[in-house]
Amino acid sequence: MTATGSPSADTGGRATRGPRGAAAIHAAVLDLLATSGYAGLTIEGVARRSGVNKTTLYRWWPSKPALVAATFRYAVARELPVPDTGSLRGDLVALVRSKAAFLGEGPGRLAADVLAHTGADPELARLADELLGQHSTHVAEITGRARTRGELAGAVDDLLLADLLLGPVWLRAVVTHRPLSVADAEALVDTLLAGLGG
Amino acid sequence: MTATGSPSADTGGRATRGPRGAAAIHAAVLDLLATSGYAGLTIEGVARRSGVNKTTLYRWWPSKPALVAATFRYAVARELPVPDTGSLRGDLVALVRSKAAFLGEGPGRLAADVLAHTGADPELARLADELLGQHSTHVAEITGRARTRGELAGAVDDLLLADLLLGPVWLRAVVTHRPLSVADAEALVDTLLAGLGG
Repeated sequence: MTATGSPSADTGGRATRGPRGAAAIHAAVLDLLATSGYAGLTIEGVARRSGVNKTTLYRWWPSKPALVAATFRYAVARELPVPDTGSLRGDLVALVRSKAAFLGEGPGRLAADVLAHTGADPELARLADELLGQHSTHVAEITGRARTRGELAGAVDDLLLADLLLGPVWLRAVVTHRPLSVADAEALVDTLLAGLGG
Repeated sequence: MTATGSPSADTGGRATRGPRGAAAIHAAVLDLLATSGYAGLTIEGVARRSGVNKTTLYRWWPSKPALVAATFRYAVARELPVPDTGSLRGDLVALVRSKAAFLGEGPGRLAADVLAHTGADPELARLADELLGQHSTHVAEITGRARTRGELAGAVDDLLLADLLLGPVWLRAVVTHRPLSVADAEALVDTLLAGLGG
């Protein structure tokens, strides 16, 4: 995976592939989303702010939703690695805290505005599906490791667990804007772990 | 509380107070939200569709956000009573199912669009706070009854429980648009109850 490679039909790599200056482009997209909102963002504006030629932007991302989707894929890949602390509880608390920070103050705080446009744009709807799917995959990876370590015996519905972990975080960060403290994150995880062990 | 009373400074009654024809007005607001979105809705349009004089509408609700907020209060009061099935599990499953139906197919399906405008309007931000606060109050009412019946012994953080119940429902209904089946609602509640009892 090279940052200077040419556009590829292989969509598997699109989270990290991009032209020279990809970091500046994605930073410009996030800045403009914060100041102008999704509706006000234009590819011209991104070109101006990032100093990257408009033609280059269009060569990589044929539309505004494609560019915005690429920016979120990039931010998620950078800021939301799968925690691997050595314990199930540690991994889940770290996961909840990183998602809360991402959605509350990080690039994810712009997600609600972008997601409000999914109805009008299939590329954004795909992005939402993909990122939420990634979250479930990460939860399954964490419970898989816990099972290997013998920390988790019974069957766990990873999809339901994923929603039980992310749902309250989403509600606070995106809807009610109430902070989720470290103690809240621990209480949330402890309640779920006690429930899963029962 | 009379449906034909005159406007009152007492905001405590505003969920149900309204002019003659309130039901038709609120139905018109929901119809127009579904077809034109929040951005496209106008008080003139509501007057036309409901057959209620524009002056009457303005006398009760001085602005579009005030009218939309009143409609959601009305819909919530009508469609989301606090379940009282006689058991904690029954109450929580009923609560989760009614919220899922309200947010997935009922008037609440229009909430994401309206909430996308809370940043621009304090009346809508207040509405969101109020309805989410109401949800926590309902959860506390349910756990309070369960405690009286001796079904719940330990301390329960009602705010956290409220978010754990509503978060996954919200995520599926509003964000990922995945259905929450009866089995899902039961699994969700059973996981939380086992966790709380632990």
